[in-house]
Amino acid sequence: MAGGITTAELVAGVSNAGALGTIGAGYMDDIKLKKEIQKVKQLTEKPFAVNIFALNLESFSSDVQVMQNHLNKYRKVLGINPGKEVIRIHDYMEEKIHVIIEEDVPIVSTAFHVLPSSLMERLKKPERKLIGMATTLEEAKMLEAAGYDMIVAQGYEAGGHRGTFDIEKHPNGADITLIPLLQSLVSHINLPIIAAGGINTKEQVNGLLEMGASGVQLGTKFLLAKEAGTNKSYRQALLKAGITDTVITKAFSGRPARGIHNQFIEQMEKANIHTNPFPIQNELTKDIRAAGAKIGNTALQSLWAGQGVGELKKETTVEEIIYSLI
Amino acid sequence: MAGGITTAELVAGVSNAGALGTIGAGYMDDIKLKKEIQKVKQLTEKPFAVNIFALNLESFSSDVQVMQNHLNKYRKVLGINPGKEVIRIHDYMEEKIHVIIEEDVPIVSTAFHVLPSSLMERLKKPERKLIGMATTLEEAKMLEAAGYDMIVAQGYEAGGHRGTFDIEKHPNGADITLIPLLQSLVSHINLPIIAAGGINTKEQVNGLLEMGASGVQLGTKFLLAKEAGTNKSYRQALLKAGITDTVITKAFSGRPARGIHNQFIEQMEKANIHTNPFPIQNELTKDIRAAGAKIGNTALQSLWAGQGVGELKKETTVEEIIYSLI
Repeated sequence: MAGGITTAELVAGVSNAGALGTIGAGYMDDIKLKKEIQKVKQLTEKPFAVNIFALNLESFSSDVQVMQNHLNKYRKVLGINPGKEVIRIHDYMEEKIHVIIEEDVPIVSTAFHVLPSSLMERLKKPERKLIGMATTLEEAKMLEAAGYDMIVAQGYEAGGHRGTFDIEKHPNGADITLIPLLQSLVSHINLPIIAAGGINTKEQVNGLLEMGASGVQLGTKFLLAKEAGTNKSYRQALLKAGITDTVITKAFSGRPARGIHNQFIEQMEKANIHTNPFPIQNELTKDIRAAGAKIGNTALQSLWAGQGVGELKKETTVEEIIYSLI
Repeated sequence: MAGGITTAELVAGVSNAGALGTIGAGYMDDIKLKKEIQKVKQLTEKPFAVNIFALNLESFSSDVQVMQNHLNKYRKVLGINPGKEVIRIHDYMEEKIHVIIEEDVPIVSTAFHVLPSSLMERLKKPERKLIGMATTLEEAKMLEAAGYDMIVAQGYEAGGHRGTFDIEKHPNGADITLIPLLQSLVSHINLPIIAAGGINTKEQVNGLLEMGASGVQLGTKFLLAKEAGTNKSYRQALLKAGITDTVITKAFSGRPARGIHNQFIEQMEKANIHTNPFPIQNELTKDIRAAGAKIGNTALQSLWAGQGVGELKKETTVEEIIYSLI
């Protein structure tokens, strides 16, 4: 989970409790990543992972004025500066790979695609495990062929960004739910498969292991851990949300992602403006989301959550979450 | 499964093998239903169920010409008569309830809503069990309040019609997948919950029981049973389909339903014509689907299937299917 949610305390807490904590480094630069890794190392001696986006995010766009006009209405209300006319994004990918190697991080997970072979080669060594994420069998086969060691099966119920590789082919991301996706990957891929999407309970974990998963991955439930960086209004929205309150939207980032439905999503749909591609759209909405979070306005934040959110009714600690699952 | 798939041999075969066979009577009239019940009774002494639509389907529409113009292109190619200008539908609901009582059918299941209380009262007796179907917690609560005895949790991965009650609120049906839906229903409903959607294997059955399901319901896998009424070209499409080949569409019936993507769905989307409401749209496309099935053209049939279809690779018998699950 990127965007300030995975604090060092959360990551180390998960690892200390016997699971695998992950630094969500997708949006970080290398300096921030190095700092986070060092903080986590101070808090745990257990293995932890770093998650990066397996996409070239270097981008430049001057074709953003229509979207900025829509977004400037929010900025006016929030009392922040109008949006820029040109967006430039640096992804610090090479630099982050360098930090991961330098800091000898034992597990690296990726989302959105297969890492380019040049980066795979640099990361790959016997003591380091690479975890890819797939939303279809086709994607899992690509990850296996590229030399990944494990694969996360991300079901349609999962919160946050859909990991789907080909967004032109699947404009809302692939919609395969966890049970059939898991069956397909377990049957056709010769790697351990980690089940992800909508998981809250020990019974679900045991059931998924019974279905062939080698492990499980949880996101949404950890948003309510005391150690997570989730802001207060986001936490309240999570506690309030019902099972039918999440939707898949491109409004915030330009890539389909599952979150709690709110006014920002609704008004983007009504305005009927094409969202810019990821990560341009993400950059465009960043200041609004930050300002929304600052004043506790849930209508102007991306409230990523999976369908399991309907059954999350209290804040807790990382340790309690892990122990409740095993 | 309605529409000629659930032959008496399939229903009785399922019951004889120790599970619960169901006559899909949604589109039948009372005379056909009585005949089917009597055929099943000749083939098994075990309990079986009748499934009906808990909707008033009595309808009349003269506002169908735009759709008929689109559909007449297919009819011309198929060499069948142009479509009618007025559609009238009788649902024989009262009459079918009468037959169910007369034939003393022990289990009645319904889809699409809660049965009207007048019909509930007529059906309800200690020896007869009523099974409702829900795609959200809200629907399950309505079924529980109305006096149903068990509830099917229909996940988003399930094939055929989405059971969602309020199609205006959820135009494509609710998209809650089986794992979170099951958690929600098991936690908040004091009735046995039957899991449905994407189920193919014993491991999945055991996993779902572990998650709190009291039973499971399968559809798609039985389409490939030798005893099913599935036509040959439909069977071939099922055997060929991959995990990402199903979509939710209103093209065939006016209600969202999951099936294998084909030309009919694609061309309806491209034509950008509003589908008529259920069951008018269903009646409109009926002759085309029948003619498509007759000549083995899968582009002109509704190929209902759940997301589990990607892992179905052989035809088999009802007995083999049931025994493979326990």
